[in-house]
Amino acid sequence: MSHKLVLLRHGQSQWNLENRFTGWVDVDLSQLGIEEARSAGKALAEGGYQFDIALTSLLKRSIHTLWIALHELDQVWIPVEKHWHLNERHYGALQGLNKSEMTQLHGEEQIHRWRRGYAVRPPEMESPDQERLRADRKYQSLEKLPATESLADTFKRVVHYWESSVRPLILSGKRVFVVAHGNSLRALVKYLDDVSDEDITSLNIPTGIPLVYRLDDDLKPIEHFYLASQDTLDKAVSKVKNQTATNV
Amino acid sequence: MSHKLVLLRHGQSQWNLENRFTGWVDVDLSQLGIEEARSAGKALAEGGYQFDIALTSLLKRSIHTLWIALHELDQVWIPVEKHWHLNERHYGALQGLNKSEMTQLHGEEQIHRWRRGYAVRPPEMESPDQERLRADRKYQSLEKLPATESLADTFKRVVHYWESSVRPLILSGKRVFVVAHGNSLRALVKYLDDVSDEDITSLNIPTGIPLVYRLDDDLKPIEHFYLASQDTLDKAVSKVKNQTATNV
Repeated sequence: MSHKLVLLRHGQSQWNLENRFTGWVDVDLSQLGIEEARSAGKALAEGGYQFDIALTSLLKRSIHTLWIALHELDQVWIPVEKHWHLNERHYGALQGLNKSEMTQLHGEEQIHRWRRGYAVRPPEMESPDQERLRADRKYQSLEKLPATESLADTFKRVVHYWESSVRPLILSGKRVFVVAHGNSLRALVKYLDDVSDEDITSLNIPTGIPLVYRLDDDLKPIEHFYLASQDTLDKAVSKVKNQTATNV
Repeated sequence: MSHKLVLLRHGQSQWNLENRFTGWVDVDLSQLGIEEARSAGKALAEGGYQFDIALTSLLKRSIHTLWIALHELDQVWIPVEKHWHLNERHYGALQGLNKSEMTQLHGEEQIHRWRRGYAVRPPEMESPDQERLRADRKYQSLEKLPATESLADTFKRVVHYWESSVRPLILSGKRVFVVAHGNSLRALVKYLDDVSDEDITSLNIPTGIPLVYRLDDDLKPIEHFYLASQDTLDKAVSKVKNQTATNV
């Protein structure tokens, strides 16, 4: 028997549009993001996909993408679990900055290191921002909040969530739908497909296109594919490639 | 210490608009219903309400009302539990009929009995409709599906859900938001306020206006009030009073 797992990166957010680092800042979808979520839901509905449970982050751009997709699927009644482990990578002091501000502050070379270094952490969030995050009710159950993360840090928490929550659900026969973020999904793909530290930083997951995994009994991938026409897919991938690292 | 509990009846559905018995038929909100949900969320946001968990039914008119309200509250990240125990009263063979069809088929007197008799069940759903409901994934975990319900039947399952799920949540300190239906909320109000079998059938809960309960340590009501101006409330109550029993 094989299992199916569907991953979906949230649609474009308002800050993706403005080319700003987002991370844990709780920015909502743009109008295009809403349309992307709708298309993803329609593609899944046309493919006859049925889910038993959906998992998403605590950030509204993911939650809204999920809700819109479930509405298109006519499956709004399924259980939904939201967990910070599926949040976007925490981008530390870079959150809120746009590409040109960042280049002015830190220079091209440093930016490249943050983008491409798997274990490189951006500078920590400033103290008042940390206070604000600590006061956010979403995170009050966390013992320690991150002040910045490398992709390796994000990988660690995503894999923990996979092992403790997602894996048992799939093994119990549930059809799972995960709606999350560029880097939390990249971390999951790294784990599932055993992608190297070097290769993962240049692997881009397009927004709003369902990524379907077929897994064997040990949850090793048999195949994966995007649920979109080749044309739609080519356009989406080239769009992501042309984006800067700020689109996270 | 006292506890706060907020109840909200979903906004107008497409079939409320068409004056048809809805029950378990999964009809979506009308445009007015969407606006009512938005107003409810805004009123709660203005009142500074914060919730730790939201509970709703498996029916999309409730789920969408909840989602819209949570969006207005900027609390989309809170856990949401959906349960059939909060579904609308199952209206048996009356589901789908409108007022004039029903009068033709059954006569005014019989309709009055179904509306006002606390323990009176409408005729059971026709067999093909029962098959369709049994095939609905939402209800596949249920051992026995109702084919019709009196308000007394609805009361029984709502009270079971209150005792097994809602009460422990509130006692553990959670601020609970319940979004449900005319009759499942009427059942809950009957239980909380110990309303007689006779009085409950004429107690009307307006759509889209948050009903706030303050409960003591034993979860006995200290007070309750609608979160709306007296003018809005008068209009809403008179609207509900002028509706026929089909608006369920």
